[in-house]
Amino acid sequence: MATPTETTTLLFLPPGRAPASVNAAVASWAERLRAEVPTLEVLIAADEAEARSLLERADAAYGTLPDGWAGRAPRLRWLQAPMAAPPVGFFTEELAAHPVVVTNMRGVYNDHIATHVLAFVLAFARGLPGYAAQQRDHRYRATVVPTVHLAEARLLLIGAGGVGTTLARYLAPFGTEVVAVDARVTEAAGIAVHPAEALDELLPTADFVVSTVPHTPDTEAMMDRARFARMKATAVFVNIGRGMTVRLRDLVDALQAGELAGAGLDVFDEEPLPADHPLWDVPNVLITPHVAMNGPYIDERRYDVIAENCRRFLAGEELFQVVDKRRWF
Amino acid sequence: MATPTETTTLLFLPPGRAPASVNAAVASWAERLRAEVPTLEVLIAADEAEARSLLERADAAYGTLPDGWAGRAPRLRWLQAPMAAPPVGFFTEELAAHPVVVTNMRGVYNDHIATHVLAFVLAFARGLPGYAAQQRDHRYRATVVPTVHLAEARLLLIGAGGVGTTLARYLAPFGTEVVAVDARVTEAAGIAVHPAEALDELLPTADFVVSTVPHTPDTEAMMDRARFARMKATAVFVNIGRGMTVRLRDLVDALQAGELAGAGLDVFDEEPLPADHPLWDVPNVLITPHVAMNGPYIDERRYDVIAENCRRFLAGEELFQVVDKRRWF
Repeated sequence: MATPTETTTLLFLPPGRAPASVNAAVASWAERLRAEVPTLEVLIAADEAEARSLLERADAAYGTLPDGWAGRAPRLRWLQAPMAAPPVGFFTEELAAHPVVVTNMRGVYNDHIATHVLAFVLAFARGLPGYAAQQRDHRYRATVVPTVHLAEARLLLIGAGGVGTTLARYLAPFGTEVVAVDARVTEAAGIAVHPAEALDELLPTADFVVSTVPHTPDTEAMMDRARFARMKATAVFVNIGRGMTVRLRDLVDALQAGELAGAGLDVFDEEPLPADHPLWDVPNVLITPHVAMNGPYIDERRYDVIAENCRRFLAGEELFQVVDKRRWF
Repeated sequence: MATPTETTTLLFLPPGRAPASVNAAVASWAERLRAEVPTLEVLIAADEAEARSLLERADAAYGTLPDGWAGRAPRLRWLQAPMAAPPVGFFTEELAAHPVVVTNMRGVYNDHIATHVLAFVLAFARGLPGYAAQQRDHRYRATVVPTVHLAEARLLLIGAGGVGTTLARYLAPFGTEVVAVDARVTEAAGIAVHPAEALDELLPTADFVVSTVPHTPDTEAMMDRARFARMKATAVFVNIGRGMTVRLRDLVDALQAGELAGAGLDVFDEEPLPADHPLWDVPNVLITPHVAMNGPYIDERRYDVIAENCRRFLAGEELFQVVDKRRWF
């Protein structure tokens, strides 16, 4: 065995606060990495105690670093977050101060989430929620629900990341105009990207407003009553990013006041959404329970991100999907 | 004014059995045709009596020819049907025997109907009907509804016409395989077209089966219990063609027996669907009340079909959207 200074070590941290399902595949990933990247020493920490001790010599780690641990990781130069958008608590002040580079899992759900968004968008464009209400009452064409003609519609993305660009690709055959505000990128395929500050100006122009952004210090509660009031009364709001970016009571109030026409929501500021929340019964709301990312091949795609970053890490190349540790994305 | 034999006359028949809305735009069309096609004499029959008398000298007509009238139309060489798929009764034996060429309005709804179909398809692919049922009960993720990964799914079209080819174009970015059976065409962009006889063989291979066909002698009740039984238990049936092509009680029975997973239906063998029909309450059924064609620009597109056929008719060219009078499409 090589001396510690000559070996590059990747440590899989124990699940910690992340859902256990996220780490279920770790053992097989470690085995595959050992075979495919033989110059990398791959370690799996069985529990917290072992993780603390192994962290001393880890050059890289996969998982969530508990608060207070960064000081015990003198060699750590890369931390791969197990999620596309790690929860509050992942990005500590201590982590920001440490020289470690953090990468995330964004991208692995793009097709599943963009398809889910389009399912919401098309349902509203064709009046399905309104007809579902008539179906419950066994009423055939009690009223004709207005349609949205996608060839003349504008969809505003909050966040022009992988989900947004995939959605723009799906919408291209319809001729829908896709615009975005984004705090990071200035261009994205098929999307007219504006700076984050343009949100208030663009909200009144959109037929669909789709939030894809993670929960960060800048996005928390960004969609509040004042912003919903800026939307067209005929427009629909979709959130498949993070629940904490939306004041949900404000959305309920805005919908009940007719300030927008409907909402498709997969994330909520409280999850699970409490059974007595008024949102459940607001007309023209489609609720799915944080399942927009569901679909096959996620673990395979996670492995591909890890393996590609291992390759880059060993080659001294810039890592893939690097996060700004102070902005959380 | 030219003598009758030198003038070519187009007669707009009174609404008759067609919905009045279909003919609301006739006056403006007639005016526009008079301006744009000055060599054509354009007549509007105010009522049945006037229509009978004007038909004597009409070379062309727009509308529905009541049974028994074809014998009173000695000069008629072109009849433009006002609908994409005229109802039973339009294609009489007498009409079939008459030398008149019949054209229809197929195509004017392609984008609206294909969008409606995709709304159904994506709703089922993402589990929306299952989550809507949980939403009614205020239950957050009582169960996780399975998704269909469109990149690996096969959609079988019954009918590879304009709606089908538009749908194939919308599905292209997803990588969904689109196959069809069709009694008329042998190729269509983006679709692997098979003869109508291949239906039974293809039904067990599809994740979505979408019927777009009109009601004809050959399609009446074509989707019956035996055919639903051939579908995958995980597959979804969509009908946006004509209700009479499906034995609706058979579909209810097949759904209740778990022979297929769901249905999105815009047309029914009885319309309006009676309030006591068992279909209303079958889980995983989305019902819309014959509105898949709703959307803007229909009258403009109808005018374009009429004007193009007027141009061709006067020039002695082959007409556009010609119907086989004995097959009704």
